Amino acid sequence: MLGREQLTPVATARSILLAKLQGIRPGTEKLPIGDALDRIIGVDIPAPEDLPPRDRSTMDGFAVIAADTFGASQSLPAYVNISGEVQMGTIPSGEVTRGNCYRIPTGGVVPEGSDAVVMFEHTVPVDEQMIEIVKGVGSGTNIIRKGDDITKGRQALPCGWRLRPSDLGLLAGLGIAQVEIFKKICVGIISTGDEIIDHTETLTPGKIRNINGVTAGGLISRCGAKVRDYGIVEDSEASFFHVVEKAVAETDLVLFSGGSSVGVRDLGEQAIERLGSPGILVHGVSLKPGKPVIIGLIDSTPVFGLPGHPVSAMVCFDFFVKPAIYSLSGLSQPEQSFEPVVTAQLMRNINSAAGRLDLVRVQLVRENGKPCAYPVLGRSGAISTMSRANGYFLIDEDSQGALGGDPVEVYPYQ
Amino acid sequence: MLGREQLTPVATARSILLAKLQGIRPGTEKLPIGDALDRIIGVDIPAPEDLPPRDRSTMDGFAVIAADTFGASQSLPAYVNISGEVQMGTIPSGEVTRGNCYRIPTGGVVPEGSDAVVMFEHTVPVDEQMIEIVKGVGSGTNIIRKGDDITKGRQALPCGWRLRPSDLGLLAGLGIAQVEIFKKICVGIISTGDEIIDHTETLTPGKIRNINGVTAGGLISRCGAKVRDYGIVEDSEASFFHVVEKAVAETDLVLFSGGSSVGVRDLGEQAIERLGSPGILVHGVSLKPGKPVIIGLIDSTPVFGLPGHPVSAMVCFDFFVKPAIYSLSGLSQPEQSFEPVVTAQLMRNINSAAGRLDLVRVQLVRENGKPCAYPVLGRSGAISTMSRANGYFLIDEDSQGALGGDPVEVYPYQ
Repeated sequence: MLGREQLTPVATARSILLAKLQGIRPGTEKLPIGDALDRIIGVDIPAPEDLPPRDRSTMDGFAVIAADTFGASQSLPAYVNISGEVQMGTIPSGEVTRGNCYRIPTGGVVPEGSDAVVMFEHTVPVDEQMIEIVKGVGSGTNIIRKGDDITKGRQALPCGWRLRPSDLGLLAGLGIAQVEIFKKICVGIISTGDEIIDHTETLTPGKIRNINGVTAGGLISRCGAKVRDYGIVEDSEASFFHVVEKAVAETDLVLFSGGSSVGVRDLGEQAIERLGSPGILVHGVSLKPGKPVIIGLIDSTPVFGLPGHPVSAMVCFDFFVKPAIYSLSGLSQPEQSFEPVVTAQLMRNINSAAGRLDLVRVQLVRENGKPCAYPVLGRSGAISTMSRANGYFLIDEDSQGALGGDPVEVYPYQ
Repeated sequence: MLGREQLTPVATARSILLAKLQGIRPGTEKLPIGDALDRIIGVDIPAPEDLPPRDRSTMDGFAVIAADTFGASQSLPAYVNISGEVQMGTIPSGEVTRGNCYRIPTGGVVPEGSDAVVMFEHTVPVDEQMIEIVKGVGSGTNIIRKGDDITKGRQALPCGWRLRPSDLGLLAGLGIAQVEIFKKICVGIISTGDEIIDHTETLTPGKIRNINGVTAGGLISRCGAKVRDYGIVEDSEASFFHVVEKAVAETDLVLFSGGSSVGVRDLGEQAIERLGSPGILVHGVSLKPGKPVIIGLIDSTPVFGLPGHPVSAMVCFDFFVKPAIYSLSGLSQPEQSFEPVVTAQLMRNINSAAGRLDLVRVQLVRENGKPCAYPVLGRSGAISTMSRANGYFLIDEDSQGALGGDPVEVYPYQ
């Protein structure tokens, strides 16, 4: 077990965790594509047909034989007869022969014989039956060929892909009305601490409301998982172990959070060690805030003991729980996702201890059009600092701080 | 009306649109905070009480009188008696007097008389009743004061704020179990074009499946609005005008999309001009892809004619429809949001016409650890290019292109 004597670097802790979760995947279910936004595909999806199904025009104009237009220009136009018209949504009858053309709307099926479309703007009507073409076109111009978008049999989308609106459009275009999706995983939340009451309860002296349970619920939903809330559990071995055991049996990943005293931390540690193997994987990381996180595995269920301070708990969620949820949900290669940043000017000096990853919350403000990052200073117990912050930047293990005036890369809280 | 003779710049088109929508706000509804994630608050929310409600310790240790520890060090420790213990979730009885201290856990209520907490690690037990303090503390050390997180009466969250997980945590901490939320707005989608069939139908010759309706549904859901799908409407004035009129009456914003022929575009234009005033605001923007967009207002309902090509339609959605949905949904200052980017190396030259905003879709790939942006070339009719792309960059109106090797700021498609 790493971390009892010394703190584990963040990247190491994450690797240890994710290595244990490899190969664990949820079952699948069939869903209509209209219900599949942001869900993860559970199988590779090949294109069942060509898209578009036929050659189509990408312009309003005239379907021609390109060779009839070669060399055509303003001063030396080509003359062709209008021998037909393409109606939207139908297959044009007949065929385009040399010296002739069909009127064609954007999206119209290109008639037999034609291999290019001259856009309307490059023609001049001579009479009802004839046009001048003032700009020649090459074969294939203004045509999207059958299968150009995607060819039958090619992979449309891979297993593990999260469906964005454009992906739903692609599936619709291919006539795929239902899709096999990984089922949502379920995350159990256990709140502990004798001082904690539910946020709907009346505050009595010495108590404080459950912030972490509610925050974690939102974070889990954002990751696309279901939440199962086990409520607030008494700080006793009997009660706590019982609920952890139940949650491990009923859900795919378990978080406990809320209490920040040594007693509660010890209870969490013991539960992970005693209820199954391998037990604790990481205990304490070189991260501020977030140091006291516990990461364990009870059989094949990851269990996280989040720090009691709300800000620390959220940071640990982002760094460790989120990638675990993504991995268990079947999302492929989450490590390949690109985390976009706002480059901003840091507005004051920030010190940091070497050997520790520091997460500095900031408020981004636009001044003279430029993004400025004001560090949100405040204890990691203060949830209001998370509401004021709209992002954070990192000071890595090798660095002892960041200088006011320097550019920093801010990861936004959205 | 701008744009009929010349194309309207993107920023101008957006300003014209958003100016017309100012002051339009949805009604509100009360929701439990557990159902309010990503919803927009409809009122200012002041803190109804102090958070935390009392002074609390941020460390496991001993609640002391700071003056008793002044000058204490490893070589010259201060000796204090342990005269009590703070239990989690209760108000400590008695008070700390000079020369005495209480054991206190993290989160415990600071007892009367005490003004600082010495962390456990800076003490050495002498016997059951006495400790050595080896590091002095100032008044307030390791204590979060009553109201330090947020003071009663201060604004916790402003009207127009979208609730993130941390904001739900703040509301929970303050005991706010229900919150007044702007109702979701409803967006109507009308698909047109005689060549268009529903994606669930069997493909017949000359037809193509409705891609834009499905894609738009996903994009609208992502913006937090409800979708009302009016299906595929015949390209006739009678049918089309009837459905537009119905959609304008029943929803807050209307999109029509699907057909890309001149006939369908004319029909859309006429509907917007004839069914109410002020009618068309913008017709055609200097944007590629996306040029043929129509933006109008029928009485107070914005109506958008999206280009028929799926990629153009999506781009217009992002640039014009999305900010309109946000504005109508009551989101405050969407212009202050910071759009994060991935800075990547452009992998080939891209030409662009001056005077036009070009959106270049790219596939981001990590090579030797660095993000590289490969332009996804393909016609704007090809929906598969949107699935391959994981972001885009812009070539602005003043520029004639971007050079391979240059850094570009990629807005990710997530």
